[in-house]
Amino acid sequence: MSKYWNKTINQTTPYVAGEQPKEGEKVIKLNTNENPFPPSTNVKKAIADFDVSTLRLYPDTNATSIVNAVAAVENVKPSQVFVGNGSDEVLALCFQTFFEKACDTDLPVLTPEFSYSFYPVYEEFYRIRSKKIPLREDFRLEPSDYVGVPNCGIAIANPNAPTSRAISLDDVAKICEANPDSVVLIDEAYAYFEEEYETAVSLLPKYPNLCVVRTTSKSYSLAGLRIGYAIASEELIEGLLRARDSFNSYPIDRLAQAVATAAILDVDYHKKCREELLKIRRYTAEELKAIGFEMPESSANFLFAKPPKCIDAETLYKNLKAKGILVRYFKTPGINDRLRISIGTMEEMEEFVKAVKEEITNAENS
Amino acid sequence: MSKYWNKTINQTTPYVAGEQPKEGEKVIKLNTNENPFPPSTNVKKAIADFDVSTLRLYPDTNATSIVNAVAAVENVKPSQVFVGNGSDEVLALCFQTFFEKACDTDLPVLTPEFSYSFYPVYEEFYRIRSKKIPLREDFRLEPSDYVGVPNCGIAIANPNAPTSRAISLDDVAKICEANPDSVVLIDEAYAYFEEEYETAVSLLPKYPNLCVVRTTSKSYSLAGLRIGYAIASEELIEGLLRARDSFNSYPIDRLAQAVATAAILDVDYHKKCREELLKIRRYTAEELKAIGFEMPESSANFLFAKPPKCIDAETLYKNLKAKGILVRYFKTPGINDRLRISIGTMEEMEEFVKAVKEEITNAENS
Repeated sequence: MSKYWNKTINQTTPYVAGEQPKEGEKVIKLNTNENPFPPSTNVKKAIADFDVSTLRLYPDTNATSIVNAVAAVENVKPSQVFVGNGSDEVLALCFQTFFEKACDTDLPVLTPEFSYSFYPVYEEFYRIRSKKIPLREDFRLEPSDYVGVPNCGIAIANPNAPTSRAISLDDVAKICEANPDSVVLIDEAYAYFEEEYETAVSLLPKYPNLCVVRTTSKSYSLAGLRIGYAIASEELIEGLLRARDSFNSYPIDRLAQAVATAAILDVDYHKKCREELLKIRRYTAEELKAIGFEMPESSANFLFAKPPKCIDAETLYKNLKAKGILVRYFKTPGINDRLRISIGTMEEMEEFVKAVKEEITNAENS
Repeated sequence: MSKYWNKTINQTTPYVAGEQPKEGEKVIKLNTNENPFPPSTNVKKAIADFDVSTLRLYPDTNATSIVNAVAAVENVKPSQVFVGNGSDEVLALCFQTFFEKACDTDLPVLTPEFSYSFYPVYEEFYRIRSKKIPLREDFRLEPSDYVGVPNCGIAIANPNAPTSRAISLDDVAKICEANPDSVVLIDEAYAYFEEEYETAVSLLPKYPNLCVVRTTSKSYSLAGLRIGYAIASEELIEGLLRARDSFNSYPIDRLAQAVATAAILDVDYHKKCREELLKIRRYTAEELKAIGFEMPESSANFLFAKPPKCIDAETLYKNLKAKGILVRYFKTPGINDRLRISIGTMEEMEEFVKAVKEEITNAENS
């Protein structure tokens, strides 16, 4: 509390990101869903070729080269793409653009009960009413729970985090169809990690109220770069541009524009990384299930796993941390019985599985 | 207007930045106050040495290396420094953190009548009441105009843009002293361009309500990078961190952290560029005055000059543009009789002066 902070800041509970080890600290980092593979080799070339003297000049405000790369890869018009400083910024701008403030409406934004923990922070910070919709058995999202519920907007992560579960495009369509006057935000930060890769982008021709948000952080191995984007109807993109130009007209620097463009256009490498990651996810899930873990089928680059009865999630989290292995544990009731485990390299996951097995054996013998 | 945009977006008039020529277009660009000199050679080295594989990992949320560099150069504690994605983002977060919303107070934020045109946009976007304080003769800011005026905050650019005039540190102190319950935001985007360089940072030990905002865009020749920072009491910095973590926890990418740190630590080059720029500013001001232009003494890297009677500012702006020379013209009544002219290289300013002289001669003869 401070007399110099306004009412909003004094009342808001900020987002807490997963812990970051200090530079150079040797850990197996499976707690913030980073991609274990390095970025495309095109990135190195883009950086080497970059003309440093151009840094004295403002960047292209629209990050046109990224916009065009996304449009080409996702098969949409450039006017349907909005680029921001990480998908967190894009999401924040979506909440500020599409969802009505509590002072202007009695209607809430609908979000799943367990989802990206930044959504309630945005709602508090931007003073938007919130209504959490419970998930069903095993964290399943039931689309009919979003039908006939008065709202001023809907935000759903698909695949959902931290649950790792996805809904089908038919389910997304059903929700868009049933809420024609609300924007339906589909946060696809973790899309792409499936054999049969689906994205709600294919639904855009039918739903002007659908806004799909993506990021280069996960599937493109660029969490360190901060590039996210929205793909939507031109009407929604125009709203986001208005919000951006009321806040920060030059959000993406010149180097980041060159790097992200190079990464997005390397379609083959992107696919190769996914195939490798899916193999490692399969291995890890099987190993954990074999020693009594339970988890929903993952559509993301992480598992949401409940340890066997002999050890509780918090103890396992702490013991792994003591061994230099970081996973994510949420104290939130309803999900505090499990861990969110990012998929690392095969070597990292073998070490992880070995460490977990030791913990289980110790717990069983104590 | 769109039914999918909320009330704020439908009602806000976004900021309009100075026009940017297309990549590769050949113009003399004196319209957005960029530095004519390339960034420090340390920047090139930082980029060449950058380990691309680290881009797969999230960056340091606090941009500690930049924080430490700023703290060292400005002689403050690292806990007094907040880094954001350009000073526009830092300013936006200051407005969101320190200034009370209209729904929570009847008090306005005070800003000079003619100042950075993003301030009224922030006020509209964040729904903050606004009161514009007129400037005095020749755009002079009179500090006593900010004494005894009820307010919930004060934002002043010093040097002011587009007027190019600065107030003294005594004047800044007077305003801080007279408004102990309000945060006084001193936007020093254009500080540093004076022989006797002064910054309100030196007043921080006395005023916990003072927040100084800076940028690497102008004096460090890094407009293309997007790094800004606030320097203030720990109490104010903590408020900004809360706002950041309610919006975007990882605002600065890894490459930008390396580049900005390298630039900020090259103190000698920074100084050398300033000396060179001041020489060119002196030359340009003298040449323009000799042909009848009037302007206040500039403390920034631009001039705010009124052409002689034979030609009006808008015509001169258009004619220069037709010749491939971009300067900034504001249609706003009260300042629509003059041009804001960024200081370029000596060669650019010689060409500019030559073109202006031709225009004056033509106007006098027609």
